[in-house]
Amino acid sequence: MHYQLFYWTGVQGRGEFVRLALEDAGASYDDVAREQGDDAIMQYLDGVHDGPLPFAPPFLRAGRLLIAQTANILHYLGPPLGLVPRSESRRLYAHQLQLTIADLVAEVHDSHHPIASGLYYEDQRSEARRRATDLREARLPKYLDYFEQVLERGGGHHALREHSYIDLSLFQLISGLEYAFPRAMQRIAHELPLLHSLKLRVAQRPRIAAYLASPRRLPFNESGIFRHYAELDDPA
Amino acid sequence: MHYQLFYWTGVQGRGEFVRLALEDAGASYDDVAREQGDDAIMQYLDGVHDGPLPFAPPFLRAGRLLIAQTANILHYLGPPLGLVPRSESRRLYAHQLQLTIADLVAEVHDSHHPIASGLYYEDQRSEARRRATDLREARLPKYLDYFEQVLERGGGHHALREHSYIDLSLFQLISGLEYAFPRAMQRIAHELPLLHSLKLRVAQRPRIAAYLASPRRLPFNESGIFRHYAELDDPA
Repeated sequence: MHYQLFYWTGVQGRGEFVRLALEDAGASYDDVAREQGDDAIMQYLDGVHDGPLPFAPPFLRAGRLLIAQTANILHYLGPPLGLVPRSESRRLYAHQLQLTIADLVAEVHDSHHPIASGLYYEDQRSEARRRATDLREARLPKYLDYFEQVLERGGGHHALREHSYIDLSLFQLISGLEYAFPRAMQRIAHELPLLHSLKLRVAQRPRIAAYLASPRRLPFNESGIFRHYAELDDPA
Repeated sequence: MHYQLFYWTGVQGRGEFVRLALEDAGASYDDVAREQGDDAIMQYLDGVHDGPLPFAPPFLRAGRLLIAQTANILHYLGPPLGLVPRSESRRLYAHQLQLTIADLVAEVHDSHHPIASGLYYEDQRSEARRRATDLREARLPKYLDYFEQVLERGGGHHALREHSYIDLSLFQLISGLEYAFPRAMQRIAHELPLLHSLKLRVAQRPRIAAYLASPRRLPFNESGIFRHYAELDDPA
């Protein structure tokens, strides 16, 4: 199967969770907007095409299917890419974990945009400082302790006792958080040994290592979800 | 199959999306915390039980399965409850729509808690006014126009051309928004005729009508997700 991924150009964004799965599996895919521009996405959002109407990218074309919402795409791709356990209970668990990652990603976004996604960061800077403080002190420890526990209960190495798209997504999550909040992540690193060894292990997978070294992997930047503003991190 | 639903007592919350599906299908279920108290939930969050670890309620026990995350639960329940089309493409579309409803529900929550879910509303009231203004003026119209379009493209009556849990969830969404933002919803009502007729149709389904008239349906209140604070609605 050849896949077409649709996601905004210029940022990793939520599309990166799908890219990592496609890259890790060595799947054949086009990153459509990077070839044709963001207009290729807008046509779908404007409803020009028949079939399901996406609310926002990422969305994926797979044969006649059009699938939107990051976690839904990964839930769909898991079996054909060999990136999720076969049992129903573990597949449901993987999806639950991905949805919980998505919840944290939304909170990370709101730490720099607590008032309105349509306003600039500069127009909500004081509110962002308050929200980012709560994120660093309450929400991040709560979520990351949870994922650490999930790994512990899975026998220490894999959330689901075998490699899955969840490992890739946790890699992306930790990488993004370390970019955005280096001081806060350093402060709590000693509490998250399993997440950190997972991150190193994923980075060493041959296809992931090749992807990360390629121009297809955009650097994190201040247009994406994980943004580094020093004033939103722990005080120096 | 007998189901056990776990959700906090005292509010409709995210659990209500699952309750509506169970009630509409006439399924056999216990609302466990309402019988045993919230401690029954805490035990699972504390990891006392083997198997999947939920991050937060709602979660559902179905035989040996434990399933968390609202949209994941509905995705699982759709086929056995007869509340989702059989085709893979439509089941994926239903799930995408539910995830998009979940995104809006999270934004509604943040309209009264833009800074920290652990703080009282009164401690983030000025930020809430700014965020709620953006919700009413930008986000609500964008999401609700989207769902109206989804209904239009589905032939005018059902998002997926047959009754599904999406209709129940859209009913709950519109009901909650009308409770929280009566003036704003009145202002845009004329743009959403299909959503409004869907809401009336769902309310008239015999099992849903019986549920809504029962003590099991808690009223909306200011501890839940959909809260009515007049200062967050359109000016009078």
